[in-house]
Amino acid sequence: MCPWISLLLQGILERLSAGEVVIGDGGFVFALEKRGYVKAGPWTPEATVTHPEAGAQIVGVNCHFDPMTCVKAVKMMKEGVEKAGLKAHYMVQPLAYHTPDCNCQGFIDLPEFPFGLEPRILTRWDMHKYAREAYKAGIRFIGGCCGFEPYHIRAVAEELASERGIIPPGSEKHGMWGSGLEMHTKPWVRARARRDYWEQLMPASGRPKCPSLSTPEGWGVTKGHADLLQHKEATSTQEMKHVLEMQKKVKTSA
Amino acid sequence: MCPWISLLLQGILERLSAGEVVIGDGGFVFALEKRGYVKAGPWTPEATVTHPEAGAQIVGVNCHFDPMTCVKAVKMMKEGVEKAGLKAHYMVQPLAYHTPDCNCQGFIDLPEFPFGLEPRILTRWDMHKYAREAYKAGIRFIGGCCGFEPYHIRAVAEELASERGIIPPGSEKHGMWGSGLEMHTKPWVRARARRDYWEQLMPASGRPKCPSLSTPEGWGVTKGHADLLQHKEATSTQEMKHVLEMQKKVKTSA
Amino acid sequence: MCPWISLLLQGILERLSAGEVVIGDGGFVFALEKRGYVKAGPWTPEATVTHPEAGAQIVGVNCHFDPMTCVKAVKMMKEGVEKAGLKAHYMVQPLAYHTPDCNCQGFIDLPEFPFGLEPRILTRWDMHKYAREAYKAGIRFIGGCCGFEPYHIRAVAEELASERGIIPPGSEKHGMWGSGLEMHTKPWVRARARRDYWEQLMPASGRPKCPSLSTPEGWGVTKGHADLLQHKEATSTQEMKHVLEMQKKVKTSA
Amino acid sequence: MCPWISLLLQGILERLSAGEVVIGDGGFVFALEKRGYVKAGPWTPEATVTHPEAGAQIVGVNCHFDPMTCVKAVKMMKEGVEKAGLKAHYMVQPLAYHTPDCNCQGFIDLPEFPFGLEPRILTRWDMHKYAREAYKAGIRFIGGCCGFEPYHIRAVAEELASERGIIPPGSEKHGMWGSGLEMHTKPWVRARARRDYWEQLMPASGRPKCPSLSTPEGWGVTKGHADLLQHKEATSTQEMKHVLEMQKKVKTSA
Repeated sequence: MCPWISLLLQGILERLSAGEVVIGDGGFVFALEKRGYVKAGPWTPEATVTHPEAGAQIVGVNCHFDPMTCVKAVKMMKEGVEKAGLKAHYMVQPLAYHTPDCNCQGFIDLPEFPFGLEPRILTRWDMHKYAREAYKAGIRFIGGCCGFEPYHIRAVAEELASERGIIPPGSEKHGMWGSGLEMHTKPWVRARARRDYWEQLMPASGRPKCPSLSTPEGWGVTKGHADLLQHKEATSTQEMKHVLEMQKKVKTSA
Repeated sequence: MCPWISLLLQGILERLSAGEVVIGDGGFVFALEKRGYVKAGPWTPEATVTHPEAGAQIVGVNCHFDPMTCVKAVKMMKEGVEKAGLKAHYMVQPLAYHTPDCNCQGFIDLPEFPFGLEPRILTRWDMHKYAREAYKAGIRFIGGCCGFEPYHIRAVAEELASERGIIPPGSEKHGMWGSGLEMHTKPWVRARARRDYWEQLMPASGRPKCPSLSTPEGWGVTKGHADLLQHKEATSTQEMKHVLEMQKKVKTSA
Repeated sequence: MCPWISLLLQGILERLSAGEVVIGDGGFVFALEKRGYVKAGPWTPEATVTHPEAGAQIVGVNCHFDPMTCVKAVKMMKEGVEKAGLKAHYMVQPLAYHTPDCNCQGFIDLPEFPFGLEPRILTRWDMHKYAREAYKAGIRFIGGCCGFEPYHIRAVAEELASERGIIPPGSEKHGMWGSGLEMHTKPWVRARARRDYWEQLMPASGRPKCPSLSTPEGWGVTKGHADLLQHKEATSTQEMKHVLEMQKKVKTSA
Repeated sequence: MCPWISLLLQGILERLSAGEVVIGDGGFVFALEKRGYVKAGPWTPEATVTHPEAGAQIVGVNCHFDPMTCVKAVKMMKEGVEKAGLKAHYMVQPLAYHTPDCNCQGFIDLPEFPFGLEPRILTRWDMHKYAREAYKAGIRFIGGCCGFEPYHIRAVAEELASERGIIPPGSEKHGMWGSGLEMHTKPWVRARARRDYWEQLMPASGRPKCPSLSTPEGWGVTKGHADLLQHKEATSTQEMKHVLEMQKKVKTSA
């Protein structure tokens, strides 16, 4: 394990128990899993609620869904844990993409995955909302997975600056809530140098010929089916033809 | 001037005259301007068409508008130059944001500027289209300004790989047109490992409560007006009140 | 009761029992309720599933939600009835508006209710899909409520023409699936004279500055609360001020 | 000519000259054309501006575009007429559909024409704006074409009630600006009983999987081309195949 991860993970349980709010990023959860703090698997939320006695010390979800969906999932997990009279620390590491149109299998089934996700990227203001919501839900390990960039993590850290007693170092590079715009020559841009402007903004996509939501794919095929086996070699022309035919069939019968 | 810029600019005219396709990035144009290759100014397109005899050797636009709008502007400039019986090299360095709703003053007037532009970010496939369109228009200095990230420039370079005789080094990290997905376990993701899938994709924003287009601001105030003077100090509470009142007045009378 | 309603209702149970597919309209359900065929109430779906032994002979829902939501609700009711080993006829009379963004209280809480619902109006092709889905769900009394216009009901009747053995009289005025366009002078309009064109069309709103979905209102106030009492007189200026203040408070705390 | 049209047209010029604001509907313009008041033709706006001396007494446009586009066109015509030192009365009879995505040939080329236009239907509040804008532009014959329904015309008449000195008879059936909602049981619906609520509403489409704008068709084929000849008989299977192949070819080359 690389040294900085060790450093970060040193005493993670002690830090969370002491009431610290830890902000992580996507690679992190894999490290946590390797050290045995969390157990990966496709059915984490269900498992937690059904078998809370399994006894994880840190409970949470990672990847596949957007921040608000993930926070909601952790809330349900927390309810299950508490109903069983148990205690745990909670973590969340969502995507940095809006995915309200996902079905239960997450963003991989969205037609935009993985090379057309740009219009779904969260703004820093979306991140402020996410950090607040996660904190209010009792989550103290608040991180990010696919799509997160440094300024996203900075926004999370800025939202929780007073709770954590730390203004993140990157904040020196800009003014909070757009205050750097106070010096702009155009008065209507100066008028954006305030918190409620950015909190209320409903940002346009600039793509009037695109929809707001997509239909996730999924062919009624689940784990174990021959079509889902890992290939050793790349898809052949023959296979691609088969795949496209299946797709057409699924869409027609939908 | 920093050494690498000097290196890049060395013989820029010779390279363009020799038929090379040069791919640049946003900081570049400022460097070009400093060396006297291009002259900055708010009215470049109009100036070119009205005074083509001014004699710039490289003619183009930078920033403020999306790729397709900028290419269209350069086309108009080229027509003006050619109508005057002159010759020039052409360049374009647009935003990496879709801005079909801008008025003549560009993306600064959009309500999303500068901290809510995420849903407008171009995909790599949009960049392929832009590079092709710019090339077809006769532009040989093809670059990018605000919002461009390395993978955007890579997409431009990949689209023009055969014209330039160079596959960009960054291409080793992925397969062209999503071909890396050929190994994916889900067949419907494997079905995305092909060019026409990504060319035809209309990516959703994942934001059904946001609009597609915004109304640019602009208060009928233009250059020279007292309200547009550069401030030495940040906007005071008093000024902010004045600005918000003006805004309200403008919107009501609209 | 007006004579034509009597005529329509004559033997409704016999007709449904004989396997007839009856197509109704919105005023109809009120008449049915008055004759004691169905019992109105805010919790019909829940009641049916929880107390299927109540013994209604015709079970269904009316108004407040869009066709697909209503069909889904009736499916759930049918499951409840059948689980209890009972039998019933099923009916559905939805809105002619798309309302995927409604919460449990229906379209009244949508900000567009009742004078800005136009962009939500179903096309005739949406009606074909609704009629097919309702029929497949085992519903045999298939009607419409607020927003339905004659051409909507005609589309429902046309979709079920072979099942009912009747081509509705209004069909003489047009060709099925747009076939009347076969005579159009523009070839790209002639190309629309076919079923799959209209089945696959994703119609644009022409309103790029409007969102796709709204946030329904609802102030955490439910039946019985003083704020929900029926007024004898119109809202006074004083009350309106109170209402607007409540609204602001709810939105701020959201 | 049917008697009521005669009645309406009696003294139309006298009425307009006397300063009356006339509100018409779509069939009207055909009648006007038959009586020689206006001359139909595909290039009316251009003709008016290029040949204002042609001497029409009533100048305007009908159908094919949305209200705001039509008002803008009439404004340009008025400028042309006045520049030539002439005088005329002005009329406008637009669609009741939003069509910002039309090219120069109007709504026939939109993929939604003619059986999927529902999401584009104007609200009554859009009609208020249209009526005001037309009046401000100096237009005194203000009507409507395809898509107008009685409540649309009522909204036009209500907006201009004080200018015309007439409250339209249909207004008795409802309260102006939604005032009938003052009696509603839910306070958040009572809060909609006011003008600025409806003026500021941005109505959602309820169709998150549909785009806001479409790409109009048009195959580079114009008047006179063999493909645009009127057919005596319906499109044959053979012709349909030809048409669909042309369409595919046009889209691929776009």
